[in-house]
Amino acid sequence: MKKKILIVGGVAGGASAAARLRRLSEEDEIIMFEKGPHVSFSNCALPYHLSGIIDTPDRLVLMSPEKFLVQYNIQARVNNEVLYINKEEKNVTVKNLLTGETYKESYDKLVLSPGAKPIVPNIPGIEEVNIFTIRNVVDIDKLNKYIKSIDAEDIAVIGGGFIGVEAAENLREADYNVALIEGTDQILRPFDYDMVQILHKEIYDKGVNLIVGDKVEKFEKDVVVLASGKKITAKVVVMAIGVAPETALAKEAALDIGETGAIKVDRNYKTNDDNIYAVGDAIEIYNALTHSAAKLSLAGPAQKQARSVADHINGKQGLNKGYIGSSAIKVFDYNGASTGLNEALINVLNMKIKYEVVRVILSDKVGIMPTSAPMHFKLLYEVPTGKILGAQAIGKGDVTKRIDVIATAIKFGGTVEDLKDLELCYAPPFSTAKDVVNYAGYVGSNLLNGDFKQVNVDFVRGLVEHNSYIVDVRERGEYANGHIKNAVNIPLSELRERINEIPKDKPVYLHCRTGQRSYNAVLALQNLGFNNVYNITGSFLGLSLYEYFNDVTQNRESIVTEYNFR
Amino acid sequence: MKKKILIVGGVAGGASAAARLRRLSEEDEIIMFEKGPHVSFSNCALPYHLSGIIDTPDRLVLMSPEKFLVQYNIQARVNNEVLYINKEEKNVTVKNLLTGETYKESYDKLVLSPGAKPIVPNIPGIEEVNIFTIRNVVDIDKLNKYIKSIDAEDIAVIGGGFIGVEAAENLREADYNVALIEGTDQILRPFDYDMVQILHKEIYDKGVNLIVGDKVEKFEKDVVVLASGKKITAKVVVMAIGVAPETALAKEAALDIGETGAIKVDRNYKTNDDNIYAVGDAIEIYNALTHSAAKLSLAGPAQKQARSVADHINGKQGLNKGYIGSSAIKVFDYNGASTGLNEALINVLNMKIKYEVVRVILSDKVGIMPTSAPMHFKLLYEVPTGKILGAQAIGKGDVTKRIDVIATAIKFGGTVEDLKDLELCYAPPFSTAKDVVNYAGYVGSNLLNGDFKQVNVDFVRGLVEHNSYIVDVRERGEYANGHIKNAVNIPLSELRERINEIPKDKPVYLHCRTGQRSYNAVLALQNLGFNNVYNITGSFLGLSLYEYFNDVTQNRESIVTEYNFR
Repeated sequence: MKKKILIVGGVAGGASAAARLRRLSEEDEIIMFEKGPHVSFSNCALPYHLSGIIDTPDRLVLMSPEKFLVQYNIQARVNNEVLYINKEEKNVTVKNLLTGETYKESYDKLVLSPGAKPIVPNIPGIEEVNIFTIRNVVDIDKLNKYIKSIDAEDIAVIGGGFIGVEAAENLREADYNVALIEGTDQILRPFDYDMVQILHKEIYDKGVNLIVGDKVEKFEKDVVVLASGKKITAKVVVMAIGVAPETALAKEAALDIGETGAIKVDRNYKTNDDNIYAVGDAIEIYNALTHSAAKLSLAGPAQKQARSVADHINGKQGLNKGYIGSSAIKVFDYNGASTGLNEALINVLNMKIKYEVVRVILSDKVGIMPTSAPMHFKLLYEVPTGKILGAQAIGKGDVTKRIDVIATAIKFGGTVEDLKDLELCYAPPFSTAKDVVNYAGYVGSNLLNGDFKQVNVDFVRGLVEHNSYIVDVRERGEYANGHIKNAVNIPLSELRERINEIPKDKPVYLHCRTGQRSYNAVLALQNLGFNNVYNITGSFLGLSLYEYFNDVTQNRESIVTEYNFR
Repeated sequence: MKKKILIVGGVAGGASAAARLRRLSEEDEIIMFEKGPHVSFSNCALPYHLSGIIDTPDRLVLMSPEKFLVQYNIQARVNNEVLYINKEEKNVTVKNLLTGETYKESYDKLVLSPGAKPIVPNIPGIEEVNIFTIRNVVDIDKLNKYIKSIDAEDIAVIGGGFIGVEAAENLREADYNVALIEGTDQILRPFDYDMVQILHKEIYDKGVNLIVGDKVEKFEKDVVVLASGKKITAKVVVMAIGVAPETALAKEAALDIGETGAIKVDRNYKTNDDNIYAVGDAIEIYNALTHSAAKLSLAGPAQKQARSVADHINGKQGLNKGYIGSSAIKVFDYNGASTGLNEALINVLNMKIKYEVVRVILSDKVGIMPTSAPMHFKLLYEVPTGKILGAQAIGKGDVTKRIDVIATAIKFGGTVEDLKDLELCYAPPFSTAKDVVNYAGYVGSNLLNGDFKQVNVDFVRGLVEHNSYIVDVRERGEYANGHIKNAVNIPLSELRERINEIPKDKPVYLHCRTGQRSYNAVLALQNLGFNNVYNITGSFLGLSLYEYFNDVTQNRESIVTEYNFR
């Protein structure tokens, strides 16, 4: 039976649903409404127009309404806003934004994919600055043209989420003076505080005025005034503090809204009305790791949800396994990726889960290859099951590869033991024979077995302040080029002959450059009867990266004689 | 109880075993014998010295005997060859190659990690050419110095395996005239014939004289004479036709040799002698997909085996799940990776397994990002279970990432359905919202459900010869820039209005540029009552790449009016 299907929103979710609906039925009538002038554009690529990596805004648009019509026989009505849903009569009221005319369109099935809108809080003096948000091609074009038209020098980006960081990066690449202002103590929540310091440093090093832990209090004429009293001049202010699901239509139609404030859907992405579905940033998803409702503003899941909806409308049941959330971001020369749970989220949700952390640094490819660089890798797993909960990776190399592998392992309920056995592709230009993922599996298994104990780099400042016994097992030349202020240098190569220098009556903390040599030293000491030895994971390289940004931006006394970032 | 452990061979397997043995016991005596002058060098990186990417041969050496001694208290005796094993007396006879002196060393446990040696067949006239092989640092240094000393111009590499291809690539990068000669019809067996054509073309395009399907018959003075009669001038000949496990020691000690000719070991990598273990290229492994014995010359597995051996010697049982074999290679501007089974292997082994092939081409990252490029992806899965058997990927972008994900899924017994649900990291610089891995899952599921039928690019020449009905659904401009000789152009945008042109009484084969639009066309036709339609996977881009190398090197008539490689 021929169906008439209306879709509200023509970007990731809406466009994917439309295409899949057509593939499943040639006869159905499919109409997609988009209040903006474009359907099917690449949201995620918007910031890259600011640097010119994507040179013209039209390149951001992937499909025209004309193509939807001739290739898929789908009507894509741009500049048409759906104002109202009448569930009982099964029709929507639509306004043509170009003509001002309103009309009704009936449906058999309705798919809502309205997305989420940037939050612009009503901060005092907001009329004193030129505020921009980034949601669609029109926004980014307007922002870019405005910056160029006034020959702007100073730009403030407020909010250190994905869009804020990418906007700041691309504006900086285009040579503007950029301030990136984040009210909490860190940018990019998918990364834990200890990991994100690497990205803080990178953003700072690349000349962005990164300010964390300081909220916007008010605006004055072309000035952002922070709670600390700091004033940031900015002819352009990009507001990127977050997005809120577009729920106005759904609310007015009395569709259920979930605890997170997003549209509530069932396992087939159906709302509480039997003929209305919803997908994308506007809905509440089920997090398979926290076992709770959550919001998830990611393009991949939106497309998958759209496909499920098209299937269900055409009589196919799907299996909704929930989401774990995987994401990635380029930050100048560094890449970051994460999947699943992190420590911050476990704490925020007050999850009663016992977990252990693996934190390793390994070369992303064979060390002698010219582009090899350290990769910082953090893995969380459940104790005592060993079940993988999440991971984060940051480095100049291929971090998404490693996180994709972990995301895959999580989907299959994998454990740290499983990671040891993974056979990953190896050749010198791509990786190391024992990949960081395997290595994390070894370390995780060793920890789980109680083979050794560890503390992380974020613990070291406390150790230094309490004058704890820290042994630096790097060779003498390395120690001379920068070390923890009160660390004793006993190189691994001298460890066995100088064993008597190490006290047995108090905790001993060992480190090297990345934690590998000190791990060997820890085991040697344990085998020689020392019972209270800890490996400092992240070691001197991780510590240097961890401490640097706060030291220099807060004029804080450093706990190392000199940083070493290599 | 203190043990004395001897290790034969000091590279991947041997060095890893030694280090792990030390971590597990501080008191054991550990001695590693290596007949060459170096332990712990990077075999896999050897070819990169030929191009100068790794500038000096000493950089290939990762650890010195001195470091093994002072850091790990391990004796690494280089230039010491183990000549003989006396199982009954539990000792080995060793020859110091520098002094000529022989001596005996007793053991409690013996670990064999002798590796594999390059095969040099006794081809007539072999004394007429300068033959080199590549196994260790001495070899590559000798080869490199010789080439430079005679100011060589023409170099022949015989054998198209990993080492042969990497040697040819690096020599070409150093501007030599390189011929790469492979006796069978393709290089790089981990890739199926249809996939490897992309690499054949790349090697040919980069100016290597690639000759496949032509064996070396004899040598004349600085000339390689092929079975075809072709003569290749070469002042230097690199022999890389394959390796044979080093089994002489094991055989003489009457240790069991397996059906593959490699050393037979149990699940803990123990030979049939209770005190002798063996790891690495010299042993026979269990292939978890073919359920049979096989050889596997890869560094990663060697290191993992070494770890298992060290564990078992120290009383820890491991779980040997067998191997699936994952590998990668860079070939000039292209990257290739593979895991698990391929079609060729299934046929060679005459496996009674029913499988289906997914062959897709998708952009490796968001299409509008400057470095985006097509990725060619081939997935094999079992019918009717959907269980993933193997995959291959080739492209200019991050192919190892996708194959690592598949390798991980295989380890967990994953199916094509599982691939649909994987949440992989997405940001425009790294991938697409729906990754090629997800996409392959969709296609695989659709095939498994019988939603559509397909033929591959390697089928098209036959179709053309039999004058089958081929529809090119690309737009008119694309068709004009090169098309299959007798294909009818009905653009997707004209399909519905020109539906009557398409015959219902015979098979119809559809293609576009990559197979995505033609897939939509196939479904539209099916929904409109056509029952005999096929999507040509790989489509025009895949076909152009597939046909090109054989067309130009065999002066074969092309089945396309013009190739298109973008």
